[in-house]
Amino acid sequence: MKRVKVTVSYDGTEYSGWQVQKNTSETVQEKLEKVVNKFHNAPTRIIGASRTDAGVHAQGQVFHFDLKVNIPISRLPQAFNSELPDDIVCLKAEKVENNFHARFDAKRKKYIYKIDNNYYPDVFMRHYSYHIYQSLDIESMRSAIAYLAGEKDFSAFQAKGCKSNSSVREIYKAEIKTHNENTFYIEILGSGFLYNMMRIIVGTLIEIGKNKRFIEDMDRIIRSKSRDKAGFTAPAKGLTLEKIYY
Amino acid sequence: MKRVKVTVSYDGTEYSGWQVQKNTSETVQEKLEKVVNKFHNAPTRIIGASRTDAGVHAQGQVFHFDLKVNIPISRLPQAFNSELPDDIVCLKAEKVENNFHARFDAKRKKYIYKIDNNYYPDVFMRHYSYHIYQSLDIESMRSAIAYLAGEKDFSAFQAKGCKSNSSVREIYKAEIKTHNENTFYIEILGSGFLYNMMRIIVGTLIEIGKNKRFIEDMDRIIRSKSRDKAGFTAPAKGLTLEKIYY
Repeated sequence: MKRVKVTVSYDGTEYSGWQVQKNTSETVQEKLEKVVNKFHNAPTRIIGASRTDAGVHAQGQVFHFDLKVNIPISRLPQAFNSELPDDIVCLKAEKVENNFHARFDAKRKKYIYKIDNNYYPDVFMRHYSYHIYQSLDIESMRSAIAYLAGEKDFSAFQAKGCKSNSSVREIYKAEIKTHNENTFYIEILGSGFLYNMMRIIVGTLIEIGKNKRFIEDMDRIIRSKSRDKAGFTAPAKGLTLEKIYY
Repeated sequence: MKRVKVTVSYDGTEYSGWQVQKNTSETVQEKLEKVVNKFHNAPTRIIGASRTDAGVHAQGQVFHFDLKVNIPISRLPQAFNSELPDDIVCLKAEKVENNFHARFDAKRKKYIYKIDNNYYPDVFMRHYSYHIYQSLDIESMRSAIAYLAGEKDFSAFQAKGCKSNSSVREIYKAEIKTHNENTFYIEILGSGFLYNMMRIIVGTLIEIGKNKRFIEDMDRIIRSKSRDKAGFTAPAKGLTLEKIYY
């Protein structure tokens, strides 16, 4: 038995998210487990680092599992890819210690939220970005996002009804990059993210960008620890899990 | 009656190309004509600048038609977009002279062919690029592409069985841009393109990049005027009609 850490990218458009669920159509985890089951000729569970929601994409999702057959690790990505649909691509496989855990050992995660701010949508980004035709005050959004940095209680950006042991997370870096003229990438690197945290932060920033809220509201919202004070939950399709750091 | 010039972008993945054909599934022209027919409540033909093939994309395709109802030109893109599927996006509409012709008046066209040269495919580019896992000698390809510039007979890059009045075209610019680490854009600006010309040029360049041919073969192939001497026809999905100049 070898514990293996696998890095995988996927277009989440057609999936009900990462995690296997009862009564839902298809999930990314299911598709990957189906391949591992085929390797093993027996049901095998894989453990993902992040449970991405329906429609959310990944550039660098990570999972681990215990490989019980004799496939060389270096050939594992190709073995996965030859069985996977073309919207899931395995990028890397590494042998790790037997106590490695994809979720619990994750130190930092980076998410990117893509905003298409062209007046008419960029057809090639329609599944990977959120289109906003109104002009956004990006400089105000840049000032507001700066309030996120540091170790804080981010309860205000947690979906209602969700309880974590602690809602304190550390944000190491939060910035808005101009990808090209009218496309903006909101990139946040954090110790972890509460449920819907990234999408609620983005929704709040967008309201600031539309001048519906003040820049300083971002600070007030964080301090309020109240979901009701924060902005809307931005659509899933703009979100990509970029990288997980161990 | 007003003659209107319309700029449109589309993801060609799901279409049998631009042009209306008998017995094929769906074309981009059909989808657009359906909208114009609705405006007019009568069948209306639109004339496209380029007949892109099945699977080929467009950032800036152009067509013209005669608008017979009283919709303000400035509101035309939105009127189209509200009726179109999300893989076709109308970007611009302009009133033009009554003798304007989208195809015959086109002076220059720019095509971009995207190559994904990552070892494993970039999942987000799978419909918009051609994936080649073998490493390519991009510098050789850059040397070879330089032979294209100028006014030449490009018969060698014309699909067999296709006859144009003349196979002389002028290439104003032909270059390979590094989009990011392992993604390359082959960009060619020309007075016009013979049938499959861009894809056969790219196929030939790829064979040079794989060191299956010499750089100077590009020159010899042009001079031969023989399709049999040139390389393979690169897949449609990597090709985008970028812009048409009038």
